[in-house]
Amino acid sequence: MAGEFDLIDWIRSNQAKSPLVSVGIGHDLAVLKWPANDLLLVGVDQVIDGVHFDSSAHPPEQIGRKVMNRNLSDCAAMGCLPAAAVVAVALPKDAPMEYAKRLYAGLREAGDAFACPIIGGDTATWDGKLVMSVTILGRSDGVRPITRGGAVAGNEIYVTGPLGGSILGRHLTFDPRVTLGRKLAGAATAMIDLSDGLSRDLGHICRASGVGAIIESSLVPIHPDAVELSQRDGVSALEHALNDGEDYELLLTGPAGIDGVIRIGRVTREPGIFLMENGSPRPLNARGWQHQVGL
Amino acid sequence: MAGEFDLIDWIRSNQAKSPLVSVGIGHDLAVLKWPANDLLLVGVDQVIDGVHFDSSAHPPEQIGRKVMNRNLSDCAAMGCLPAAAVVAVALPKDAPMEYAKRLYAGLREAGDAFACPIIGGDTATWDGKLVMSVTILGRSDGVRPITRGGAVAGNEIYVTGPLGGSILGRHLTFDPRVTLGRKLAGAATAMIDLSDGLSRDLGHICRASGVGAIIESSLVPIHPDAVELSQRDGVSALEHALNDGEDYELLLTGPAGIDGVIRIGRVTREPGIFLMENGSPRPLNARGWQHQVGL
Repeated sequence: MAGEFDLIDWIRSNQAKSPLVSVGIGHDLAVLKWPANDLLLVGVDQVIDGVHFDSSAHPPEQIGRKVMNRNLSDCAAMGCLPAAAVVAVALPKDAPMEYAKRLYAGLREAGDAFACPIIGGDTATWDGKLVMSVTILGRSDGVRPITRGGAVAGNEIYVTGPLGGSILGRHLTFDPRVTLGRKLAGAATAMIDLSDGLSRDLGHICRASGVGAIIESSLVPIHPDAVELSQRDGVSALEHALNDGEDYELLLTGPAGIDGVIRIGRVTREPGIFLMENGSPRPLNARGWQHQVGL
Repeated sequence: MAGEFDLIDWIRSNQAKSPLVSVGIGHDLAVLKWPANDLLLVGVDQVIDGVHFDSSAHPPEQIGRKVMNRNLSDCAAMGCLPAAAVVAVALPKDAPMEYAKRLYAGLREAGDAFACPIIGGDTATWDGKLVMSVTILGRSDGVRPITRGGAVAGNEIYVTGPLGGSILGRHLTFDPRVTLGRKLAGAATAMIDLSDGLSRDLGHICRASGVGAIIESSLVPIHPDAVELSQRDGVSALEHALNDGEDYELLLTGPAGIDGVIRIGRVTREPGIFLMENGSPRPLNARGWQHQVGL
């Protein structure tokens, strides 16, 4: 048996350097010199076996990449630059060291794409299945962070790509829109990444901003995966595009004429979210992903 | 059924304010204005059902407090001031909303003791048991961070309290030594919190510092819990004090004469860790807690 400290040594010896980090892995906490003019952004996202991936089907590199990319996607949504990450792993007792290394290889590959090193972590083994959480630190680096709360009536609503059917594989292999998010932050009034599904994530923006929205069904970009899934399950491709989660495209509001994105509707003063189909509106209820907590 | 978003609303409405935080819970990332002269410290520690607590025996408030306090203890070990935390929770599907609220109440109680608000999180439900990770942000606030790497030959070795037998309950109810850690940081050359056990944690300091150590068995402060446990299991109270984990006292090195701590030995130039008993040394092998990762 090898111990967690062997794993920590291996991770440390395989870690990219960052000019921000003065003390990295191997102490009780990492130490960073934060740039004086940069806001600090922070958040955590986890992946859980049987919920966000299936360890019996998905290789560990994909799982590691997914949890890092989910966090990088949050950076994209805020318009910030990923800076560093820490990771907690609850690893099944019978997982070989090689498996743990492959998880970290996936984490690292995803982080390296945006110069985002892993600077700390906590690895434990247990009787249960794999749970991994990544906490990401981002910095504003000259770009004003965009929240969910700035949409105003009259704004247009945009997405950055086609939606739906991510369960066919894109939920694991997506590229976080970090570079695009930073560009859009100059114009966007509100932004979020599409993890829970368009209908639900638009609700988050509307609620945080105190506005409503009308989506034009004919403008919603439908991914070929949504079409394929529709042929399998009989649910329309539009419904998949509206409600499936884990697209990891960006949903944003802003003035008319933002380049490089797809307009799908507009922000209204009146609360409520509606879908215009053939000229008549129907309420667009949030049907995307939400974890249920018992009462 | 209530959803995770109801839980998030509840957490947000129950959260303490921090002057550092300009955007808190409810967006893709929280936003902080980091004080220009402060170093940023960051790390993550998790608790897992059946490893760090037993959900069938321990109330959720204690579990929440423990995971926050483990992180506050890391701040203590570095001499930094806790600033804010984010939390990831993998919650059993059948856990009632009330249980989740009680977990957060414990987190909050522990964080509030050091003005450390929860500013973000990720809650998901699954078929498995409870896993919770907290990532803590700390700031130097005028105190130089202390790593494991600064011990030098001739330094004395100290601990901040009696050791051993924490499994009888202290592993859940300890008070993190944040205030003491900041005081000691002025004099300490290296510091760590005793989570893995004295023999193993001293090894971390020695390895990071490139030194050895001699511990005087007669100087090791033995907790009454170690004595009680010894009477139950026949292992000596000293062995419990040397090897049990989760004391969450501080272990530090520094010059002679540091006040308010207990001297237990000294740092040597020669590598290796030895225990002096009745005037003769024996190797002190690390026997504290280490998660095993299969090969």
